[in-house]
Amino acid sequence: MATEREQAVFEAAIKLGALYHQWVGTPVSPATAATLERAIQESVGLQPYVTGITVSLDRSRMAGNIFGYAELEGTMFTVDITTKVGAASCHARLHRKDDYPLMEIVSCHEEPGHPGH
Amino acid sequence: MATEREQAVFEAAIKLGALYHQWVGTPVSPATAATLERAIQESVGLQPYVTGITVSLDRSRMAGNIFGYAELEGTMFTVDITTKVGAASCHARLHRKDDYPLMEIVSCHEEPGHPGH
Amino acid sequence: MATEREQAVFEAAIKLGALYHQWVGTPVSPATAATLERAIQESVGLQPYVTGITVSLDRSRMAGNIFGYAELEGTMFTVDITTKVGAASCHARLHRKDDYPLMEIVSCHEEPGHPGH
Amino acid sequence: MATEREQAVFEAAIKLGALYHQWVGTPVSPATAATLERAIQESVGLQPYVTGITVSLDRSRMAGNIFGYAELEGTMFTVDITTKVGAASCHARLHRKDDYPLMEIVSCHEEPGHPGH
Repeated sequence: MATEREQAVFEAAIKLGALYHQWVGTPVSPATAATLERAIQESVGLQPYVTGITVSLDRSRMAGNIFGYAELEGTMFTVDITTKVGAASCHARLHRKDDYPLMEIVSCHEEPGHPGH
Repeated sequence: MATEREQAVFEAAIKLGALYHQWVGTPVSPATAATLERAIQESVGLQPYVTGITVSLDRSRMAGNIFGYAELEGTMFTVDITTKVGAASCHARLHRKDDYPLMEIVSCHEEPGHPGH
Repeated sequence: MATEREQAVFEAAIKLGALYHQWVGTPVSPATAATLERAIQESVGLQPYVTGITVSLDRSRMAGNIFGYAELEGTMFTVDITTKVGAASCHARLHRKDDYPLMEIVSCHEEPGHPGH
Repeated sequence: MATEREQAVFEAAIKLGALYHQWVGTPVSPATAATLERAIQESVGLQPYVTGITVSLDRSRMAGNIFGYAELEGTMFTVDITTKVGAASCHARLHRKDDYPLMEIVSCHEEPGHPGH
């Protein structure tokens, strides 16, 4: 059986994979980035086990095509998400590293006195 | 060659098809629908030839799954979009009809004294 | 009212906008491109008023990230689609031009003896 | 630090979340489901740490709209994915349960003689 820590990790990763492929391709510009950040945060926040989500989109990469806008790319994202399952919580992140949109586990915690299962 | 009216129709339809498949599947609830509407409007408004866009999402269809949220479906949309190419403009719409997300041309106009081409 | 030519244009453009935002972001490599092309063609071919669809994905732009794959981008597409509404047909295209994924009307036709409406 | 088991869980979950939101909304019918299954499998198989992926789409839920096709919904999926990070592997699944598209960890393993990380 999976531990609560593993389940918290699982839930965080689902959300990162999901938001990436839901939103990539969306037309965006520095003028609309704030609304898009908020929409992504609110949307992810609806999903089960999420306790926190912050989304920041890199405006410096939205220079724009010949019509003056960009499309949202994976390398524009900085996302921090926290999830909780039982007594275990997970903090995971999506951010650009070596021009790749890397997803990684930042940390996992368990509340003292709870053995997971 | 395509007329300016046909080009205005073409541009409106691209945007309707695009927004539908970009946003369908997004987690949504009545509490987050307003932000999502605004994000879609701002995003579509960046694209070339768009002169107006309104998006309304049907909250009555967001009753929610076992975790209390819904996913955006095509039948939740009411979208009115207007485009302009040269002297011609087009008003097109996406809305539910017989439980199908129908896209249709509402009207096309040309400014007097401009023959299109 | 819209003419049949305008309606054929409308239907072609919906499909181009739709497929673009449905498929952009999909992991792809030269080894998987043929299956993806076929899946897109079959999917678009299901939609109303479509009489023909060919999809070609530019393998030369799939050099790959640090893990050896690419994500489908708009500039990889060459798509030709034909639609028919009543006696009118439309041929439209999505292809890269000046590094932008341009959608355009190639031609429209009406069968002789049919006045459209 | 995350264990290798947790990292294998993380990688499996990313892929489930990603494929769900990449492919939901795609037009599909019983006649095209096999190609779509193959395209999803090949696409996910390109991503890092994936050692196995099977996708089955429920044709019985593709009855179709007024134009005779359906759109891919989360509840149509049965997906089994296995990932490996170091000596640890994870088997995770997406399948319909109580009409919800549930993602869950099926099992985790570590090869004997490997201490995790």
